[in-house]
Amino acid sequence: MKKDSCAQTAQTKSEFEPKSLMADTAEGNHRLSKKEYERLLPDLRARLVQAQSALRQANFSVVIIISGVDGAGKGEVVQRLNEWLDPRGVDTQAFWQATDEERERPPYWRFWRTLPARGRLGIFVGSWYSQPLVDRVYGKTRNSHLDRALKRIADFERTLAEDGTLILKFALHLSKKDQRRRLRDLERNPETHWRVLPSDWKHHQLYDRFTQTAEKVIRQTHGPKTPWFVVEAANPRGRDITVGRLLLKSLQARLAQRRDEKPKKTSSRRPVEARKPGTNLLREVDLTQSLSDKKYRKQLGKYQGRLGRLIWAANARKISTVIVFEGWDAAGKGSAIRRLTEAMDPRLYRIIPTAAPNDEERAHHYLWRFWRHIPRAGLCTIFDRSWYGRLLVERVEGFARPEEWKRAYQEIKEFEEQLAESGIVVVKFWIHISKAEQLRRFKKRQEISYKRYKITEEDWRNRRQWGAYEQAVNEMVLKTSTESWSWTLVAGNDKRFARIQILKTLCLSLGRAL
Amino acid sequence: MKKDSCAQTAQTKSEFEPKSLMADTAEGNHRLSKKEYERLLPDLRARLVQAQSALRQANFSVVIIISGVDGAGKGEVVQRLNEWLDPRGVDTQAFWQATDEERERPPYWRFWRTLPARGRLGIFVGSWYSQPLVDRVYGKTRNSHLDRALKRIADFERTLAEDGTLILKFALHLSKKDQRRRLRDLERNPETHWRVLPSDWKHHQLYDRFTQTAEKVIRQTHGPKTPWFVVEAANPRGRDITVGRLLLKSLQARLAQRRDEKPKKTSSRRPVEARKPGTNLLREVDLTQSLSDKKYRKQLGKYQGRLGRLIWAANARKISTVIVFEGWDAAGKGSAIRRLTEAMDPRLYRIIPTAAPNDEERAHHYLWRFWRHIPRAGLCTIFDRSWYGRLLVERVEGFARPEEWKRAYQEIKEFEEQLAESGIVVVKFWIHISKAEQLRRFKKRQEISYKRYKITEEDWRNRRQWGAYEQAVNEMVLKTSTESWSWTLVAGNDKRFARIQILKTLCLSLGRAL
Repeated sequence: MKKDSCAQTAQTKSEFEPKSLMADTAEGNHRLSKKEYERLLPDLRARLVQAQSALRQANFSVVIIISGVDGAGKGEVVQRLNEWLDPRGVDTQAFWQATDEERERPPYWRFWRTLPARGRLGIFVGSWYSQPLVDRVYGKTRNSHLDRALKRIADFERTLAEDGTLILKFALHLSKKDQRRRLRDLERNPETHWRVLPSDWKHHQLYDRFTQTAEKVIRQTHGPKTPWFVVEAANPRGRDITVGRLLLKSLQARLAQRRDEKPKKTSSRRPVEARKPGTNLLREVDLTQSLSDKKYRKQLGKYQGRLGRLIWAANARKISTVIVFEGWDAAGKGSAIRRLTEAMDPRLYRIIPTAAPNDEERAHHYLWRFWRHIPRAGLCTIFDRSWYGRLLVERVEGFARPEEWKRAYQEIKEFEEQLAESGIVVVKFWIHISKAEQLRRFKKRQEISYKRYKITEEDWRNRRQWGAYEQAVNEMVLKTSTESWSWTLVAGNDKRFARIQILKTLCLSLGRAL
Repeated sequence: MKKDSCAQTAQTKSEFEPKSLMADTAEGNHRLSKKEYERLLPDLRARLVQAQSALRQANFSVVIIISGVDGAGKGEVVQRLNEWLDPRGVDTQAFWQATDEERERPPYWRFWRTLPARGRLGIFVGSWYSQPLVDRVYGKTRNSHLDRALKRIADFERTLAEDGTLILKFALHLSKKDQRRRLRDLERNPETHWRVLPSDWKHHQLYDRFTQTAEKVIRQTHGPKTPWFVVEAANPRGRDITVGRLLLKSLQARLAQRRDEKPKKTSSRRPVEARKPGTNLLREVDLTQSLSDKKYRKQLGKYQGRLGRLIWAANARKISTVIVFEGWDAAGKGSAIRRLTEAMDPRLYRIIPTAAPNDEERAHHYLWRFWRHIPRAGLCTIFDRSWYGRLLVERVEGFARPEEWKRAYQEIKEFEEQLAESGIVVVKFWIHISKAEQLRRFKKRQEISYKRYKITEEDWRNRRQWGAYEQAVNEMVLKTSTESWSWTLVAGNDKRFARIQILKTLCLSLGRAL
């Protein structure tokens, strides 16, 4: 990247960063003497630690990306930040070669798993930017690939930012001349010789190409909530102080902002919005469909056998499956799942029941806990309730604010797109029953001793919200059905019919994918 | 295994299992009719669900191993348990092929990572028994290897059991004739044909060898707290009911036992035991050792350079490093760690600061959180405080009961042995300072604004316990120093001397390993 133009970009677009500081960055640090550095440092460190201490109590995390040309001192900056901050609140992530557990999942799985929890800072040396950038510079990919990768990055960062994550991206800049000097100096000194890798000199030869591509990357992924800061790195002291001050400023600004915000309201139920006259998909489900016991037994054997074979075939071809079960309370999710798993080798599947999140999960974006459970290549994860809870219970009960659940449509679409792109078969079931059938089942459950635990006050409360849920389900199905896979609305009043419909659908989807 | 002798074994040794039930197992279930099964089932299911519900509030986890000959229906039993229990409280684990993240760590890493949390059940199909057993049957290992593996298993299970884990191991038994019949039946039916793997027939040919070895395994790893139950599997209904009833009985017995126990006392400080007249290792550390600033700078550069190269060389040879830092408050752990990391590529190391455990960690054995962070091959983990907290703060503050911290000596030894066996370099530092020096540092820290956060009331409280800590440290060092690596007691009054001592020691240990 050319320093001036990019610094300009950052200066124009970022809301966090005062002009004077940017001027510092662009010019000031050339002149930062050791004396000046030592004068500035104690105050900066004290404030950083104070801000970090406030962060610990706050409800957001900080993602810091340190990138830039080789020799600009990325490692040193990371070092410095770890020194200035309380390291107990910092996670430094370096994306070393992907492991097979990572390679066998969508590419962003490894990034999701390393995101810092609320109250913590994550420093990333190497990040979701590295691969797209390097691949393009080395000519392994075309511009169109890069564009798509940048779109994905923008989506990812927007998702995090909207969840409250403070994102700060630093591009350390060094002129080609300075880079050459720096690499030579390191090499000449026997004690730092080891720091220079062969790839560093290779990158040096590609300097122009590299900075040109980086500039494009920065331009396309810079935004008020995902700012890039271009930092001149020729003078290490100036570089470090600048990064430290930018971090401090942004952190302080965000902390102040949080204090002004009203606390999130969770108790008040928002009134259910007026029912739209449009299609009510649930009402179109023919709940009178049923299956005789004889037919059921025959088909159960047939489709279970087929499913068992398909799941093994998928395993052999390293194709993963994600099955989502949603439905009314007592719709029969559990028993339907068992009809699937009866046919599947226990080594090939995993059931993830979705209950209230634990504190580690609560400390992350709501999708984090589901990313965790995306299966490795060739395996199957069955979600008994899922990320769609955001659009169902969290919406209806007011656990998520309207702006939160509304943006979930887009977030979920992007999430599932990533699954699809990496070849995962996603099948989603909503098991539908009538309100009357639910009541019958609730009552029956209370009569059977070993099923009594299944009925709680919550179930009755949900039932009273039937209308609100009906609307939420409708919108969910309409807005999260994509071409390649849509929701299957299962006619659940007759359990036998429902189970066969599910088995059939699943076999069909797997068959198509194989 | 021969049914009779093993059933006998289980009958004699297990404390949980009433004789009548074992008689059931050995003979009764041959005759269990469908009618009888359906008569017994509702009550069993209701009780199981009740017990599981009580478990959710209890402070222990349940580990269930389902093993046995092929065709005995391991998968079916797992299926059944998942059906009878509330699946939201059950984790089913199948140890599919190890991933590289698993292969690059000590073999038990993958077992530790899948252990159920307190209040939950973990069902293991395939377990720590599979590999040693199969390797021996196929002649890949000798008897002595098997013995060593069984010793490790016994240690592992003892560790879990002492932590409160309820361990139940089921060996499903089938005669050679029954096995042949079962495999043939499955193969003949086109809908279950896929269930029979080529390896199943191969195992069948090795039936005698297999059961003979299994019998040995069972005998050597059976104990009152780690019981094996041999279950006749020729009649599936009888098999399932037996497993269900044994699980229920054991669970109920444990739950009743827990209710009788007195609550764990945490508040009362035990009096410090009388100081033993033996060696006081800490007093032998020469705290007057120091280094001039000039010498320090020279040696710092030298050893940092060397360390940087060694860490890269270790990476190239896939050798991992685990560095443990313990020491008095204000001993300079943090700054010593920084002197190491300054020399290391940030992609190669990770600092794990050990603070209070989070709720996921608290729900497991105390070593679980450290197992999590064992580095992959070629990488380095630095623990800023560690598992030794069990023998230090937890002991002195009474967070761990005497029997708990006393058995930690053995647990830690076994843990570190496993690290050593898989080629990990373990280096342990206790940074020692005098009580007077600590006071000086506390006071100084309070004067420097950005260090003030480091001094808390807890530090002063710990200081008042100096004598108790001194004794604890002494015992720790004496009892957890093994031949291959011992503790390095660092003379910390002079920070410069300490840092160089640490760097030198680390370079030496790494150098020896490479």
